[in-house]
Amino acid sequence: MPEIKALLFDVFGTVVDWRSGVARDSQPFLARYAPSIDAHEFADTWRREYAPAMEEIRSKRRAFVRLDVLHRENLVKVISGYGIAPPPPAHELDELNLAWHRLDPWPDSVDGLARLKRRFMIAPLSNGNIRLMLDMAKRAGLPWDAILGAEVVRAYKPSPSVYIDTVDILGLERHEVCMVAAHNSDLAAARDCGLRTAFVARPAEHGAAQTTDLRAEQAWDFVASDLADLATQLGCPD
Amino acid sequence: MPEIKALLFDVFGTVVDWRSGVARDSQPFLARYAPSIDAHEFADTWRREYAPAMEEIRSKRRAFVRLDVLHRENLVKVISGYGIAPPPPAHELDELNLAWHRLDPWPDSVDGLARLKRRFMIAPLSNGNIRLMLDMAKRAGLPWDAILGAEVVRAYKPSPSVYIDTVDILGLERHEVCMVAAHNSDLAAARDCGLRTAFVARPAEHGAAQTTDLRAEQAWDFVASDLADLATQLGCPD
Repeated sequence: MPEIKALLFDVFGTVVDWRSGVARDSQPFLARYAPSIDAHEFADTWRREYAPAMEEIRSKRRAFVRLDVLHRENLVKVISGYGIAPPPPAHELDELNLAWHRLDPWPDSVDGLARLKRRFMIAPLSNGNIRLMLDMAKRAGLPWDAILGAEVVRAYKPSPSVYIDTVDILGLERHEVCMVAAHNSDLAAARDCGLRTAFVARPAEHGAAQTTDLRAEQAWDFVASDLADLATQLGCPD
Repeated sequence: MPEIKALLFDVFGTVVDWRSGVARDSQPFLARYAPSIDAHEFADTWRREYAPAMEEIRSKRRAFVRLDVLHRENLVKVISGYGIAPPPPAHELDELNLAWHRLDPWPDSVDGLARLKRRFMIAPLSNGNIRLMLDMAKRAGLPWDAILGAEVVRAYKPSPSVYIDTVDILGLERHEVCMVAAHNSDLAAARDCGLRTAFVARPAEHGAAQTTDLRAEQAWDFVASDLADLATQLGCPD
């Protein structure tokens, strides 16, 4: 296999636990405005608006806007959908929207990335915007070499241009770059563009009842149980 | 003064010593192809092509291309201007072009940035492209929170859009962001856009005979002797 020089990471679900984090930060908000709503269900409902909101941009029906904007619009939709009325003040929604900036890494993420960083360029290739990724990294100690992703290339995964333009920014050949993700669909899109692929199992991303992405659904170049395992497979010592 | 939340850094000259680094990496090349040319003079000549090449893009006569491309084109011009013939092989020019990725920081830069990082978001706002900044940071240990700059906003300083669009990416008000540079002109452009300004003296950037940017030429918000001094002035402990 030709030498891999850079690893690009999906972040929501692969590096950080978005569901627990959003639920935790939603809890005090819900306690005030809608105490009957379960915080994890609220997080799931908010997350369900993510793909359709990006699809508006992928389909060119809407010009690119960063994910913070989509998350904020989606929050208003979710609150309205739950019938929370009158709507909470804008500044509280602004603050709750930052829950996505404060997600905790999975237990193996920080050490795994630090090991991988010694041998490879490492960067997020997330649909999250730059400031979101920056806040998350600074809070959690994620040791990225750079913050790449949707906002840099002004398109959302799995649009091919996201993978292709990011490889171009890195000045590499596509086979020198490996996409790392807990989602088979992300890897399939990256492979279609000629990138290498690494699946990392995150069977609790959606909670105990998760039914999707429990295992590698194609023969990805690497299949790992977590980022420590991936580092070992890629020859990065402890 | 309103609270500053992010510091954006000019890099060539402000954080790293481009002249010594380019001269060092040019030395073995010149020894083979043009032993009569002084390596520091060669570095100066190469650097002199920098502003006019970017001006083609700032003036919209040319679409944006990253600095690696301009450096490579400028290298061909410089070699031709010196009458080095026949031209050295392309792969040697490609390799020499990477001299700009391997510049050493000034002695105070790494520690100064590490101190500043504890209190502020820190990122380069350089005309250098992302991969160039990434390689430089990884080699030298520059602890950026993100890599911003010309390639992210697809424009070159001192075009106002570079400063304005970068502040927008950070989700901040312009007065919450401080530009740090050893060049009065960079700070003037940033101030015109409403950013805060910090001058850091780098009186040896152009060698012992430097005549420009020896001192602050306006009443910048901060004037520092180096990045350690700036960290102290901004209340970042050792």
